[in-house]
Amino acid sequence: MSTLRIALLGCGNVGSQVARILLEDADALAARTGARLELTGIAVRSIDAPRDVDLPRELFTTDAEALVESADIVIELMGGIEPARSLILRSIEHGATVVSGNKALLALDGPTLYEKADAAKVQLSYEAAVAGAIPILRPIRDSLSGDRITRVLGIVNGTTNFILDQMDTTGAQFDDALAEAQRLGYAEADPTADVGGHDAAAKGAILASLSFHTRFALDDVYCEGITQVTAADIAAAKDAGFVIKLLAIAELLPRDDADGAGAEGVSVRVHPTLLPRDHPLAAVHGAFNAVFIEAENAGELMFYGQGAGGTPTASAVLGDVVSAARRMVLGGPGRTETTTGHVPSMSIDAVRTSYSIGLDVADQPGVLARIAQLFAEQGVSIETLRQSIHPAGDPGQATAEIRIVTHRATEAALAATVEQIQHLAVINSVTSVLRVEGA
Amino acid sequence: MSTLRIALLGCGNVGSQVARILLEDADALAARTGARLELTGIAVRSIDAPRDVDLPRELFTTDAEALVESADIVIELMGGIEPARSLILRSIEHGATVVSGNKALLALDGPTLYEKADAAKVQLSYEAAVAGAIPILRPIRDSLSGDRITRVLGIVNGTTNFILDQMDTTGAQFDDALAEAQRLGYAEADPTADVGGHDAAAKGAILASLSFHTRFALDDVYCEGITQVTAADIAAAKDAGFVIKLLAIAELLPRDDADGAGAEGVSVRVHPTLLPRDHPLAAVHGAFNAVFIEAENAGELMFYGQGAGGTPTASAVLGDVVSAARRMVLGGPGRTETTTGHVPSMSIDAVRTSYSIGLDVADQPGVLARIAQLFAEQGVSIETLRQSIHPAGDPGQATAEIRIVTHRATEAALAATVEQIQHLAVINSVTSVLRVEGA
Ligand SMILES: NC(=O)c1ccc[n+]([C@@H]2O[C@H](COP(=O)([O-])OP(=O)(O)OC[C@H]3O[C@@H](n4cnc5c(N)ncnc54)[C@H](OP(=O)(O)O)[C@@H]3O)[C@@H](O)[C@H]2O)c1
Ligand SMILES: NC(=O)c1ccc[n+]([C@@H]2O[C@H](COP(=O)([O-])OP(=O)(O)OC[C@H]3O[C@@H](n4cnc5c(N)ncnc54)[C@H](OP(=O)(O)O)[C@@H]3O)[C@@H](O)[C@H]2O)c1
Repeated sequence: MSTLRIALLGCGNVGSQVARILLEDADALAARTGARLELTGIAVRSIDAPRDVDLPRELFTTDAEALVESADIVIELMGGIEPARSLILRSIEHGATVVSGNKALLALDGPTLYEKADAAKVQLSYEAAVAGAIPILRPIRDSLSGDRITRVLGIVNGTTNFILDQMDTTGAQFDDALAEAQRLGYAEADPTADVGGHDAAAKGAILASLSFHTRFALDDVYCEGITQVTAADIAAAKDAGFVIKLLAIAELLPRDDADGAGAEGVSVRVHPTLLPRDHPLAAVHGAFNAVFIEAENAGELMFYGQGAGGTPTASAVLGDVVSAARRMVLGGPGRTETTTGHVPSMSIDAVRTSYSIGLDVADQPGVLARIAQLFAEQGVSIETLRQSIHPAGDPGQATAEIRIVTHRATEAALAATVEQIQHLAVINSVTSVLRVEGA
Repeated sequence: MSTLRIALLGCGNVGSQVARILLEDADALAARTGARLELTGIAVRSIDAPRDVDLPRELFTTDAEALVESADIVIELMGGIEPARSLILRSIEHGATVVSGNKALLALDGPTLYEKADAAKVQLSYEAAVAGAIPILRPIRDSLSGDRITRVLGIVNGTTNFILDQMDTTGAQFDDALAEAQRLGYAEADPTADVGGHDAAAKGAILASLSFHTRFALDDVYCEGITQVTAADIAAAKDAGFVIKLLAIAELLPRDDADGAGAEGVSVRVHPTLLPRDHPLAAVHGAFNAVFIEAENAGELMFYGQGAGGTPTASAVLGDVVSAARRMVLGGPGRTETTTGHVPSMSIDAVRTSYSIGLDVADQPGVLARIAQLFAEQGVSIETLRQSIHPAGDPGQATAEIRIVTHRATEAALAATVEQIQHLAVINSVTSVLRVEGA
């Protein structure tokens, strides 16, 4: 098996998790890629800075330029414009594949980078730059490449979504919700880039460029943050059936909506927005992100997940790395399916889940105790039990409906319990057995 | 510009829309692909059958085998096992790229097809086979390739989701909800494949195979449909804060959950499932589909959209076609970004949207009329107006808060209105101006 040499630039929130996964999951990644991904070095400013992850000290260097020159794949997670841009350009010149999560750089100077990469026939990918862990750029570029996107609405900044969600749920004012976000680590000490909408604007420019096959720069994005949104605004919106979200919007304006020339155009903008409470984006709570897309043929699509955080963002970075590495290894079309694993298929009996069980029982004293005892004997523990009585004409003929939700148990234990329970004299019938997930 | 010859097998719900898009959007597809996608023929059983789309008669043929032999890309949308399988194998032998939406065939015999395609170094893709328009297979295969998926929960059958959603909202019994689904075209005359869970099971097998890098066949899937779910089950679930969905579940069972051997394993199953009402999948209504994924690093992700229908499914097919064609044209890594379009960026003034405007006004007779008149003069029409009075100590000093939601208007008209309104004597202040989307 061949080896691909990987240079990591930056070892902060995201970089340290990327390094951890490259080292911890080396075997699985090699099996899926067809090549070993060897982390040859990590460039940082200060080798002795404290890190989120324990990593071998000999991997660290402050000489990013030298590191880049010997790499097959360069992962840029330093952030900022320089020296990130120069290092990426240098990597491309050396023929290295580049993966980056640097939305600021891409929104500012993406076109230069894409051109250089295309000219040098090297891959440049940056899934992590927009909406963290959510696969969104690749779906827009590949899966929707045969369709015509008309509108993109994105909750692409977790900090502001957390703040607005707090205000919506607790009635808090902006300042208090911001303080809470800072306390919980969702907002930085200087929150300007987030609450001012600038972070969302950079992502909006990238989303618009991919969606409309045209380069939009940060300057093209109209930007309004959430600092002016008051508790009264949120309360009034709620009253009228709306929720307020900070959206990055990229929208194709039809001819009759556009300015004098009568041409189609694209509006890219970030501003607080009222959304009906039954809109799919309205259900995106806390620091989660989501991107809602309308396309001519596909209709409405939504992509939802964690938009930030070292580990989730590292997942997107590694997805780019493995995808690029596969193409480097296999050439041509790549493999249809990677079935390098051999996890056995398990029968339903091995599954542990919760159950909801409906019973039609005689309404007699002692029935509940009898049922509870039987469950206990089978080792299936009851989480909730609800009973409703159906009165009957004849006294003593009344029946009751019982609904039990169990704690997790195996299918086997559950099947045995249901089998036993049918034999109890007080049970008229087992009316339903359904599984419960996600509780 | 080079030309790629496209053979279409089948011209039913999906195939007819694929043909339409290939013909209608030929120029845009060529620009994005770098090659013209020439539809050379459409194989059907009966040339004179009525079609959803008007297509040139000379494209039709009943000789699918001949059609396949001269194609660069073969799109299989006939459905069923034979002759679809033989035609796909023949296409691969001829070195053609294959795109299919045939979940039944892929669940039954995917491994053979993938192996033949890989051996022949041709691309085989089938995004449309699972969850219609939703990009889900490509994200699992590429974007999540550096992560470890632990669980997939999918609402992958629109018919059953429509029926269960009907039962949940209207309290209907299964039979009535099914009849309604049939009346609206969401269920077929023979609904067995859908309500019995078999369609979802085929998709579950495909999802599991990609997620766990191991081949799972239809036989590995435990399958229970929704025919036994009663209105009483739904009502009891609702009472307890749950909703019932038919889920396709593929789940990695940890060692201690698995059978005697103590190994990890995967359970693939389809059954009606209670989900808490605040679970993201609980908000998936009507015939929509969604796939919820849990991965070790990415955390929770959800992909939402239309799971069926000729046009949405055609979008997924075309995404596969364009992606594959791009690789055929460009070789190597493909392009970073396709900025072949030149849509101008529009200023915010050209945007038409609705607005929510908050006003602090004197509580005097005639205020509302004055405001309404001013909006009318500016050509901004009011959709709703709510007023709440803040009583004051001094009579005549009371103020009122007014919230107006407008119909769609341009930013320019809105800005002029807000400017004017500030000059009205009865207005204390404009407290907020927020935009509304999605209403
Ligand atoms: N954090 C997220 O959730 C998230 C989400 C999506 C995208 N991103 C993007 O991912 C990138 C990295 O974010 P992060 O949160 O991981 O940043 P971070 O925690 O600030 O880490 C930056 C790292 O880069 C190193 N670095 C900075 N300047 C350098 C220089 N001139 N030479 C050498 N090393 C240098 C730092 O070295 P020292 O450790 O020695 O200071 C540090 O290790 C950014 O572009 C960000 O926008 C982040
Ligand atoms: N419909 C959806 O929403 C949807 C969603 C996802 C995936 N899919 C998949 O997409 C595929 C097509 O679905 P569909 O709904 O479009 O099917 P459909 O409406 O039944 O159309 C099938 C087409 O194939 C042709 N055909 C069938 N057998 C043939 C044969 N032996 N020789 C030549 N032509 C033959 C038929 O010809 P005639 O017109 O002459 O009868 C018809 O044009 C299926 O695999 C399905 O599972 C469909």
